[in-house]
Amino acid sequence: MTTVLTNIRPIDDQLSEFHALIAGTCLARTDLVPAARDADVVLDGRGKIATPGFVNAHTHLPMVLLRGLAEDVPLRTWLETIVWPIERRMSPADVYQCTLLGLAESIRAGVTCVCDMYFATHEIARAVEEAGLRAVLSYGIVADSLDNGGREELAKTAELLEQWNGAAGGRIRVAVAPHSVYTVGQDVWEKAIQLADDHGALIHTHLCETRAEVEEWKQKTGETPIATLNRIGAFSVPLLAAHCVHVDPSDIEILAQHNVRVAHCPKSNAKLGSGIAPVAAMLDAGIPVAIGTDGAASNNRLDVLEETRFACFLQRAAAEEPTALPARDALRLAIENGRTAVGLSDVPFADHSPADVVLIGTDSVHAVPSDDPAATLMYASASTDVADVVVDGTLLMRDGELLTIDEEKAKQDVKSLRRRITD
Amino acid sequence: MTTVLTNIRPIDDQLSEFHALIAGTCLARTDLVPAARDADVVLDGRGKIATPGFVNAHTHLPMVLLRGLAEDVPLRTWLETIVWPIERRMSPADVYQCTLLGLAESIRAGVTCVCDMYFATHEIARAVEEAGLRAVLSYGIVADSLDNGGREELAKTAELLEQWNGAAGGRIRVAVAPHSVYTVGQDVWEKAIQLADDHGALIHTHLCETRAEVEEWKQKTGETPIATLNRIGAFSVPLLAAHCVHVDPSDIEILAQHNVRVAHCPKSNAKLGSGIAPVAAMLDAGIPVAIGTDGAASNNRLDVLEETRFACFLQRAAAEEPTALPARDALRLAIENGRTAVGLSDVPFADHSPADVVLIGTDSVHAVPSDDPAATLMYASASTDVADVVVDGTLLMRDGELLTIDEEKAKQDVKSLRRRITD
Repeated sequence: MTTVLTNIRPIDDQLSEFHALIAGTCLARTDLVPAARDADVVLDGRGKIATPGFVNAHTHLPMVLLRGLAEDVPLRTWLETIVWPIERRMSPADVYQCTLLGLAESIRAGVTCVCDMYFATHEIARAVEEAGLRAVLSYGIVADSLDNGGREELAKTAELLEQWNGAAGGRIRVAVAPHSVYTVGQDVWEKAIQLADDHGALIHTHLCETRAEVEEWKQKTGETPIATLNRIGAFSVPLLAAHCVHVDPSDIEILAQHNVRVAHCPKSNAKLGSGIAPVAAMLDAGIPVAIGTDGAASNNRLDVLEETRFACFLQRAAAEEPTALPARDALRLAIENGRTAVGLSDVPFADHSPADVVLIGTDSVHAVPSDDPAATLMYASASTDVADVVVDGTLLMRDGELLTIDEEKAKQDVKSLRRRITD
Repeated sequence: MTTVLTNIRPIDDQLSEFHALIAGTCLARTDLVPAARDADVVLDGRGKIATPGFVNAHTHLPMVLLRGLAEDVPLRTWLETIVWPIERRMSPADVYQCTLLGLAESIRAGVTCVCDMYFATHEIARAVEEAGLRAVLSYGIVADSLDNGGREELAKTAELLEQWNGAAGGRIRVAVAPHSVYTVGQDVWEKAIQLADDHGALIHTHLCETRAEVEEWKQKTGETPIATLNRIGAFSVPLLAAHCVHVDPSDIEILAQHNVRVAHCPKSNAKLGSGIAPVAAMLDAGIPVAIGTDGAASNNRLDVLEETRFACFLQRAAAEEPTALPARDALRLAIENGRTAVGLSDVPFADHSPADVVLIGTDSVHAVPSDDPAATLMYASASTDVADVVVDGTLLMRDGELLTIDEEKAKQDVKSLRRRITD
């Protein structure tokens, strides 16, 4: 199939419009308007804004099953009385079904890469392989020592690395995911670091999400969670830390020194009352802060654009600073920093770059009039304006229609499962 | 035309589904499913959530013209170098055109009532009359004394009251709008209060939006802006105060004692770096806090649902309190408190209530699965899920199609105007 991209207008005003063909999984830029009549598919970017897609740097896709189920309760109640009991009842097949719905929502929101941590990760990988996105997938390791479950937990990740790292033509990579410093013992952490190092894999973990978690850790150990991870060598490998809400200046210095990537999840942190992460300070220190939605049980959307708008406005409101995170800088969190966070190092939209292209319409009544593309996206667009999504050269959505997922079936399956599991 | 509403499921779980006919401008509830075959229009609420519509308690609709035009600059620069120069070039006909676009966006977002402050208000009223929403409209009075323009400014409001208060079958009412305590002299304020009292009209003003404005006022007068307004009798009539970001406990006490209504505009306050209003404290004091989007130049959406979600999450994040503003309480800001703020006193959805009904779909991929209607709306729905809008018995939108506004023309008109006015 020949796919032609014409009049593609990148979010950066300084980048000019371009045309391209899709050659395999890559873009082939061309100076001339390609001959549309010879193409099977023509994506015309006129009146649209083009991005290489948003990265959801921290999520738990299958949790769409729990959307709206446990509202307005404290974090611990939420986990113990609702989330965990339901998760214990989810079969691998359930995880697969729920992942498909989460991926459908992600594609519709212009997300081209997800960084997920959950269980039954083989099933998540299978869904991602079919749906066509990029993903960094992991199994959340919880074990207080190697002898008490740690070896078995690590073995699951080793198996995932074996089977799925680099799968789907390189679209899928596997990360090593000790759940957090307080749910995983030091000996397990050390083996996890070793495992990541052996495979050149990313470590993906939760870090400093709530004030209570950090205070308890400091009382117990006399150091911050970040100081502990630093001491045991966790930052000697590439590490993506979700949340980082309660970090002090010395923590920020450690994160910056070791090139730790942060997945900022502002809506989840707000909804669960965890607080406001010092994003401006982390960015100033040079930390690549990306955007994560967390799971749909604590958000309740997998909408990276809405998440980024919230991140931007939250920082400005808290600092009373109208020039904090200008539109293009805010979008950088969701795009460039997201790519850095998950290890996508190529330059988007260059000749021979992987063909990841998202076209977002600007003609909705809420986006008119539109001049500056970054301001339009950041302040006015809705994820429902996303029209076309190409990942790795394959069309996943065209004119608002999903092409790789049977959306109606995905919705019905999860609705049925929800009825069954909450009965 | 006979319109029939079936299977209407209100956001409150304790309210049961109902059926109704539209009799003129009112609902006629019925226990039986009405005979659909005799109706011209059947709105079936199955799979949807019904509300009486959102109230946008503080906006400047024609500012859609400036959407995305002046980004990421401090408030004063924004006003002086961009907003005011363009507004000076807007003709009454321009205001009319831009209002239509703002109203189209509002209807699409499920807004059934707007509370607007601008100039060329006759044109705004004309647009509202045609578009079919409810509105409380006002001309923003700016004058440092009666002798220096104040009389002429007040005369414009008197004329509006004469011509438009109660117009369009009562859908349109006129408020008296001294712009703020710092842009309007005391003698003008006193006449404005008298004018509102004479007509039983609401006063609509900006109050305590920025820290600098409040500090300067205190330095100049030795009292807070709220103490000043109280002293000159502004709270002896119903008053709607937009913003109220920088209010102290004594201010909150005054507002509560005098039943002052507050229009909270969290996204505008965030985007312009004004800060975080103490919404929880104001609600605790019994103040009816409603939601306003402010104008599209500082937001950039007129989306009350997104605004309310932001309000809720912002309070939780700032207070680190996951149980602050539960879903239904947060929605109350946009619905019940909005109605109170603008003086709509009837009980929605009762027999003989005015027929204001908004149906919001729950089958979008970002809203599935959905059980609790309030949680779905508050945390998952997008304004693009709004399907049908009825105001005062008239259908303004059906199945996502606007019926009272030529949307394509409204968009084209404002696009052309934007090109002309920024040339």
